[in-house]
Amino acid sequence: MNFKIKRTELLNALVKVSRAVSLKSPLPVLTGIKFDLKEDCLVLTGSDSDITIQTSINENIEIIEKGSVILSSKFILEIIRKIDGDIVHIFIVDGNLTRIESSSSKFDLNGTPAIEYPRIDLSQTGSHFQLKSMQLKETIEQTSFATSEKETRPIFTGVNFKAKDNVLECVATDSYRIAKKTLYIDSDISFDIIIPKKSLIEISRIIEKDELIDLYVSDRKVLFVINNVYIQTRLIDGTFPNIKAIIPDTFNYSLNVKTIDVLSALDRASLLSTEQNHIVKLTMDPDNVVMSSFSQEIGSVEVNLSSAFYKGDPLHISFSSKYMNEAVRSINTEKIVILFTGEMKAFVIKDMEKDDIIHLVLPVRTY
Amino acid sequence: MNFKIKRTELLNALVKVSRAVSLKSPLPVLTGIKFDLKEDCLVLTGSDSDITIQTSINENIEIIEKGSVILSSKFILEIIRKIDGDIVHIFIVDGNLTRIESSSSKFDLNGTPAIEYPRIDLSQTGSHFQLKSMQLKETIEQTSFATSEKETRPIFTGVNFKAKDNVLECVATDSYRIAKKTLYIDSDISFDIIIPKKSLIEISRIIEKDELIDLYVSDRKVLFVINNVYIQTRLIDGTFPNIKAIIPDTFNYSLNVKTIDVLSALDRASLLSTEQNHIVKLTMDPDNVVMSSFSQEIGSVEVNLSSAFYKGDPLHISFSSKYMNEAVRSINTEKIVILFTGEMKAFVIKDMEKDDIIHLVLPVRTY
Repeated sequence: MNFKIKRTELLNALVKVSRAVSLKSPLPVLTGIKFDLKEDCLVLTGSDSDITIQTSINENIEIIEKGSVILSSKFILEIIRKIDGDIVHIFIVDGNLTRIESSSSKFDLNGTPAIEYPRIDLSQTGSHFQLKSMQLKETIEQTSFATSEKETRPIFTGVNFKAKDNVLECVATDSYRIAKKTLYIDSDISFDIIIPKKSLIEISRIIEKDELIDLYVSDRKVLFVINNVYIQTRLIDGTFPNIKAIIPDTFNYSLNVKTIDVLSALDRASLLSTEQNHIVKLTMDPDNVVMSSFSQEIGSVEVNLSSAFYKGDPLHISFSSKYMNEAVRSINTEKIVILFTGEMKAFVIKDMEKDDIIHLVLPVRTY
Repeated sequence: MNFKIKRTELLNALVKVSRAVSLKSPLPVLTGIKFDLKEDCLVLTGSDSDITIQTSINENIEIIEKGSVILSSKFILEIIRKIDGDIVHIFIVDGNLTRIESSSSKFDLNGTPAIEYPRIDLSQTGSHFQLKSMQLKETIEQTSFATSEKETRPIFTGVNFKAKDNVLECVATDSYRIAKKTLYIDSDISFDIIIPKKSLIEISRIIEKDELIDLYVSDRKVLFVINNVYIQTRLIDGTFPNIKAIIPDTFNYSLNVKTIDVLSALDRASLLSTEQNHIVKLTMDPDNVVMSSFSQEIGSVEVNLSSAFYKGDPLHISFSSKYMNEAVRSINTEKIVILFTGEMKAFVIKDMEKDDIIHLVLPVRTY
């Protein structure tokens, strides 16, 4: 292996593929990035066996001699980040010892034979459809936070992607709340899969600009092709519960409020607590909407939501400030509506104008 | 206690006094800030018993009724940071329950009786002299990092301030390196004290603008008066070693080099390591200056310091990259000189132009 390459071009690619690498991988070879120098391009692969990211470079590169090696993700990334000069020269010195050289610096890095890297099939098989990158990124941001952190029920650690009749429904839940996003897609493809949250987060990080993403859905994996970056993730086994029956569709009470006002009220009402999952209470009647919170030890707080507009009989309801905060933020709009069916019943948070993203939150019993 | 105050004025004062407060204090009352509302001003005090910070506010405040209370540093700071409105109204509701009220928010915070706060004497006694605030800040930044992290020899966890014949010498060491700063002062005062590093860091953080600081040095404590902020710290007991004999004054080898070049070479030469105390080597002769480093497991690196100017017989010397990095950064100049007396002898790092700050670093034995 022997090639010269533009430093920023290589750095950019390494940053992407290194996202798949876990430095704590039980398989030492997976803490590295595989360099595959072919006749016309350099292929870089990173994987933690759950998610694999691969990209190739065929511009701003001078290929001197083909070859391959695995280099530590951590060190090669740092070297390319900090080495001086616009062009770096990378070549095998001896066996797997790889030299990375620029005008005034010379690094010799112990590599691993490329043959030790696991075989990963990134072929474009399975049902194919396309999504707009920014739409996928938004969907991930609006749902993935609602997955469960606990591994006890693996299906809840991922987001359910279900396609049917030109509609893609993406649902996440930790069993105390639900986030549901509905998208229209240009394909009558059908599938019902659960994608690990971690993989979705990495995909969302790699999406930088508006472009079309090709998705290839198979039984046990899904491949995302974003420009010349291939991201493949395993799926989570199991059947995701049907949440249709859980989300109410008629409501007796409604609260219209500016997003910024709810967020700042939540922020203040959560102040007198050291827990992240702090409970706050909404006390509402048509004349007055107050968010409050109480701690025996520390004290109490009351915030008036003077810009809020409430319709219905007087109602008070308590909930986790974290759940409300994350739901409201994710809607990313100016005005939201919160819809209630009763004191101890799950309530719905959504955009005042549209229904594409819906959050359901379970209340909690309090004082 | 009952008063109205400009929010930003109070916030600013709370941020300062809260620096002295340790949330983990074994004395619960010291996790709070004491509010002392007098006839003409509000006095705020924070302390962890090692360091005490006190300030007073007499502008932008409307005093309705005198009184005092201790409020949790953490919560009162967060409340004043996040409450709405320009003016906040603070008053005792009942016993020690204190209300903090603005146009749309109302906080009730459980306080502690002010009588439980320890008596702290902040009187301006002891030997008095003055220092320029920015000179003190620079001195702290140039020396305090060289103190020891280990509590085994308490005197090394502070900086020695020694005044005599209009000269103030500030010395810190962890026994592997020394930082020595020399200042000329407008007083023939004499003292020899050790100030805890932690206290110095807090003092340096409070200094924001160029002004004169009054210092009052007593046997067991020193009081800094910065405008209307009083900072008092205990001193560390013990006698600081005389380092005069340790710092060599004749040298056989010298390396003149740009600060930015040493720092970037250190940065790259330390890349192939997971330790913070990574060892690097300088190999010098009049034609060539190379910084290198080697790790059996990971690989090796060589960086050419092409802009460096070396005078002397060929020499190679190894040292901690962290020590070199911190010393070079603290000098805060464009060009430095490193002076050597021999391969295994301590070497000196200083500004090429002046001698006010001098660092001594012990080399290490390597391959």
